[in-house]
Formats: sequence, C-alpha cells, structure tokens
Amino acid sequence: MKNISVLGSTGSIGRTSLEVIDKLSHKFKVVGLTAGRNTQLLEEQVEKFKPKIISLEKKEEAQDLRRKFKGESIQVTFAQEGAEEVASFPENDIVISAITGIDGLRPTLAAVRQGKKIALANKESMVVAGSLIQNSIQKFGAQLIPVDSEHSGVFQCLAKEKMENVKKVILTASGGPFFSKSPSEMNNVSLEEALNHPRWKMGKKVTIDSATLMNKGLELIEAHWLFGLAPRQLGILIHPQSIVHSLVEMNDGSVLAQLSPTDMKVPIQYALTYPEREDSLLPSLDLSEIKSLEFYEVDVEKFPIIKLARLALEEGESFPIALNAANEVVVDAFLEQRIKFLDISEFVTEVVENHQKRKVQSLEDIFDVDKETRRASLGLLKQRS
Amino acid sequence: MKNISVLGSTGSIGRTSLEVIDKLSHKFKVVGLTAGRNTQLLEEQVEKFKPKIISLEKKEEAQDLRRKFKGESIQVTFAQEGAEEVASFPENDIVISAITGIDGLRPTLAAVRQGKKIALANKESMVVAGSLIQNSIQKFGAQLIPVDSEHSGVFQCLAKEKMENVKKVILTASGGPFFSKSPSEMNNVSLEEALNHPRWKMGKKVTIDSATLMNKGLELIEAHWLFGLAPRQLGILIHPQSIVHSLVEMNDGSVLAQLSPTDMKVPIQYALTYPEREDSLLPSLDLSEIKSLEFYEVDVEKFPIIKLARLALEEGESFPIALNAANEVVVDAFLEQRIKFLDISEFVTEVVENHQKRKVQSLEDIFDVDKETRRASLGLLKQRS
Repeated sequence: MKNISVLGSTGSIGRTSLEVIDKLSHKFKVVGLTAGRNTQLLEEQVEKFKPKIISLEKKEEAQDLRRKFKGESIQVTFAQEGAEEVASFPENDIVISAITGIDGLRPTLAAVRQGKKIALANKESMVVAGSLIQNSIQKFGAQLIPVDSEHSGVFQCLAKEKMENVKKVILTASGGPFFSKSPSEMNNVSLEEALNHPRWKMGKKVTIDSATLMNKGLELIEAHWLFGLAPRQLGILIHPQSIVHSLVEMNDGSVLAQLSPTDMKVPIQYALTYPEREDSLLPSLDLSEIKSLEFYEVDVEKFPIIKLARLALEEGESFPIALNAANEVVVDAFLEQRIKFLDISEFVTEVVENHQKRKVQSLEDIFDVDKETRRASLGLLKQRS
Repeated sequence: MKNISVLGSTGSIGRTSLEVIDKLSHKFKVVGLTAGRNTQLLEEQVEKFKPKIISLEKKEEAQDLRRKFKGESIQVTFAQEGAEEVASFPENDIVISAITGIDGLRPTLAAVRQGKKIALANKESMVVAGSLIQNSIQKFGAQLIPVDSEHSGVFQCLAKEKMENVKKVILTASGGPFFSKSPSEMNNVSLEEALNHPRWKMGKKVTIDSATLMNKGLELIEAHWLFGLAPRQLGILIHPQSIVHSLVEMNDGSVLAQLSPTDMKVPIQYALTYPEREDSLLPSLDLSEIKSLEFYEVDVEKFPIIKLARLALEEGESFPIALNAANEVVVDAFLEQRIKFLDISEFVTEVVENHQKRKVQSLEDIFDVDKETRRASLGLLKQRS
C-alpha cells in the first residue's frame, strides 16, 4: 500500500487522480489533499478518502474545516505553507503535483526535497525552475514521473533507450478549438468557444493555453528539462485526433510513439503505478474505428506564441519565467473577459519581448522575475483597457 | 569488431544486410556467406567482403569457385550441410538468417546451437519450428532478434515492459497490391501485378505472400513464438502507408508503436546493433509530409488465407508446418505461372483443411509433415491443371 498526497485535489487533474486512486484502492491510500477555494469539494473528498492532512488557501476556511472535522484526527493547514506541509508530509510515498501555475512550484520542491516519487502535472514548475528541480532531484534522490500525456508518452517510449541515441522528440498538439479558424475568425471568439476544447476535458487555464498553443510551448520547455533535450531536438506536430501523444525519433531512423484514448486517467495511472502497470477499465483504442491519424505542421503565423516559447526555450535563464508569468496574468484577464482572445498572444509577446534576460540561481531569483513580469503584464493590461 | 555470417546473401534481405554492414564496416566484418544459385552475385560479394567461408547450392559450382579463389584462404562448401557449416562457423558473432522458406530452418538451428546472436529474417523457421527453436535458444544461450519490420517494431516497443502487462500485439499489413481490388478483379491479376508491391521492395516469395496476406498470417505465428503471445493477443490491422509497423497495447490502455521509413535497412541495422543503435543515413520520417496514417480491419472474406493462418496458429502442432509447406509449393506454381492468383489461397486452404493434425517433437517430425504436405500439394496442383 502506497500513501499519496494530491496537491490541487479539487482541480481537473486532482479529481481525476482521486478517481484513479479510488479504483486502485487496494494499492493506494490518500494521506494528504490540498485545495484552493473549492472548500465544498475538498470537504466531500475528505469524507470519502479520510486523509491525515489537508490544506486550503484561506485561514478562515481552514478554521471552519477544523471545527467540522474536530472528532477525526485530521490536520488542517492553509496557504502556501500549508500546501508545502502536505507535500512534505512524512508518510507520503507519492505526491501528485497538480496545482496550476507557478503556485505549484514551492509545494513541488518540498516533495522533491523529501526524496519522494512525484507525479508531475504542474508543468509551470518545470518551465520556471527546471534546472533547480533537476538539481534537487539528484541531491535528494527523488523520482519524477510526468503526468502530461505527451511527456508520459515520451517517458514510456524512452524506456531502455540511451539519450545519446535520441535524435528528436515530437510532442503532438490537437490544435485546440481554433485549429481550422482563420485569424480574422479567431479575433472574435468568445470565452465559451475558447473553453470548448475539441478533445480534452481539462482545467480552464490549460484549456485556454491549448487554444493559443501556449500549452505546447510550455510543454516544449518542460520536455527540455524533463529529458535533457536540446531545443533543436524538440518539435511539435498538430494531430487533431489526439491519439498519438508523442513520438521519439532514434538516430537509426526508428520512431517510437505512444498512443492512448484521450483520457488523463491513462497517464495519471501510469505515473502512479510506474514501473508497474495496472489494468484499466477504459475501452481499448480501436484504430480501425478511428480510421485516420492526421499530422500537420504548426502554423506559427497563426499561433505566434509558439515562436515566442521557442525563443524563451533557447534564451533560457529568466525568459521562461517571464513567459509563464505574462501568460498566467494575461490568461486570467481573458478568463475574466477583460481582453479578447487574440490579445492573449499579443500581450504576452509584448511583455516577453521587452523582458531583460538575467541569470537565475535561486528560488528567490525566480520569484523576483515572476513578480516583476506580473507587474509589467498588469501594467500593459491597464494601459490597453 | 563483430563477425557476421549472412545466410542467403544474394536474396533481397541478404543484399540489404550487406549494404548495412558495408556502411558500418568499422563495427562489422563479414566472415561467411551462403547463396543458392546466384553464383555470379556471390562471387562479387566474395570479392568485396572477403569472407572466410562461403556456401552455395550445387557441388559443381562450389568446385568452380574453389578454383577461382584458389590463392585466397577461403573455404568453399555447398548444399544444406554447407549452409549449416557457415551458420556454425566458430568465428561468427552474429548470424543473419535470411534464407527463404523452410530451407532456412537447419542453418538457423545450427547458429542457435552455437549460442550465437541471430538476426532472424527467415520467418518460416519460426512458423514450422517455433517451439524447437525457443527450446534450443534457452539451452544454448543464443539470442534471437527479429528482422521482420513488424516484429522488430514489437521488440522495440516491448523494451522494458513485462509480458504479463501486454494485452495485445497488432501487426500492420500494407494490404498488398490488391487491397482495393474486388474479388472478381483479383481473379485475373497477372504475375507482374502480384509482384508489384506498393510499399516494400522484397524477394518474390514474400511479395506474393504479401499479396495474398499469407505473409501476415505467417507473421502472426512467428509473433506467437517470438514473444510468447496467445493467439487471442495477436491482431492485424491494414495500414496502407506501411509507416507504423506494429502496436503493443498494454493492460493500462497505453499503446506503444514503432514507425519508420519503409526500408528494411532500419530493422536489419537494429538487429545487428542491438542493444546499441547506430546513426542512419536515411531521411527522417516526416509525418507532416505523409499527413495521414490510415487503418482498416482486414477483409477476411477477400483474404480468407488469414482465417486459415489463424486456424493453424490455434491448432498448432503440425498445422503451421502444413500451412507453410502448402504455401511454398503453391506460390512456386504461381511464380511459374502454372496457376492463377486466387488459386493460391484456394489450393493452400484445401490442403490445410485436409491435413490430419499430429504431434511434432523433433526436426524429423517437422520434415516429415513438410514432405508429406508438399506431396499432397503437388498432387492437388497436378489434379487441377
């Protein structure tokens, strides 16, 4: 029996993770949960999974829950420190890092420093602090298994392969809801249209990132750090069916690919059971029913954010942090319907192009760049509104 | 530097193997070659690769070559025993088994009994003597790496996976030249049309087997013995582009696939270099150029030989031997233009359906069934002509 803490348990990945754990309850037990403001769902999860420690964002809500669960031996903490406490809870065997955005960084690092196995869904941590996280993994003997379907695919394909024999890794992108829209049509899409992803049911932020293709840009940077690949070894292919998640081209011309139904249960379960695999209740992939798998080049004129992400990947240092911070702020503004869809890409580009690159050597450096870029992004939003 | 003997060096796989070895001449040296009747090409190969031992079919031709290469220290043998001598040449590190048909069986076994690494292209050996070969591999500590592109793909996908977690293995088939022909159109196809494979340049026998889909039937049986998979775990998908060679479905819903350009150099080189990989000069697979990968169910009404192969696979014992023998004889008759294309499937079916299953425990048993089935097949051909 392995003990699991789920960081971000009320989000999309968090909820699906709990479904997987529930199905494999003979193997896994929930010991910790962290949530943001969805106290009601967290309460339900606590009642069902009986964790030993939980954390939520606000002190007052934590006090409410403490009263509510008084009779039971459950530790209720709050805020960033609370999430870190859950992440470093000594009884954890596995920590699922599924908080969205840079908010997931400190809790992820807390789990890494305990030398735990981390199932990483929080790609932004890797984007802003890849070097720091990899150094800590080495230092503390932690193990990191990707949960993003594309990176899970790469991880599976790499299996026994030597990295020196890997020529290229290609992540596929569905193309999002606007793949076949013209730029002028994209100009007036609504929030609802942007949130209506054709293939994946995901959280709001990543759904918007998928519509702008920023999600794929962040994933390129994530893959760079996860697998130690040079920028020129990383590619993207549009694949509207979202069945092939990634492809690994070897030096001898052979290409290994990972396919699965478009359901996050597959990579989540793999991350939890690795190096074992457990039966799934999902129906088998039937390619004769799907009939055709299509692949296209990315139209970088239509989705210029991909070029921006490549720039951040190649420049490195503070650039990916600025990219991520600008994107988080600007996507928030779009989700609050304060800007139009095409503004996302435009504003993020403007902020990142004005960013002054600098060396990043500590967590403090990362948060400095993050804070400063958020300020610049908010300034730009204000100026343009 | 590894020493290689190529059994069947003048055939399609043999010639391509020598191209691969030539390109990797810093790693590999040819020490042995065997050929059938293409003495002229064998001579050229001897002059280029300077092997230490060669074998060809006829005694007289062997004597000719002995005279011709008198000054050089080269051992020239002949017939089945000659091929076995090359296969068990003590200096071999790797033996490429690329003789077509059951004729490859004794030489393959000779290499296995020396505990060598065998790159197996001779699928018929596995079909008729899978159990015997696997037992000998265990006993003599040999290693067998498949060369068939589909099985090479499966081998690569399985990498670190546990066989108990494998749910299904799917081999793809291009569908051959008659994939989109109606049965009545297939009735009158010429030998040239049948030999004109849309994707692969191969030897004549396997090209005809690809047109009838018998090749895929034999490959199912080969996969059964290579990977220890039950018949129900083995499937076929038609995939006209021949880019995805095989798919391995795991118990957790994840599917691993191997793709590569339609060029036998890829699996041949992999078999030679395994567990390493070497750079290839082939252009990278560009899926955005290929655009679409299509998959269809096999039409077993149009290609009934698939049902027959499944029957042989499920019945086991002497059935696969009978299937292979009938097919070798009947395909020969088609290559000599003595029968029509649709007769192949019809005659093979008739012979196999009349076959009386019996236990097979030795090489002698195998050759008995083979001989008897050849007699029955020749009888049927005579009767129908």
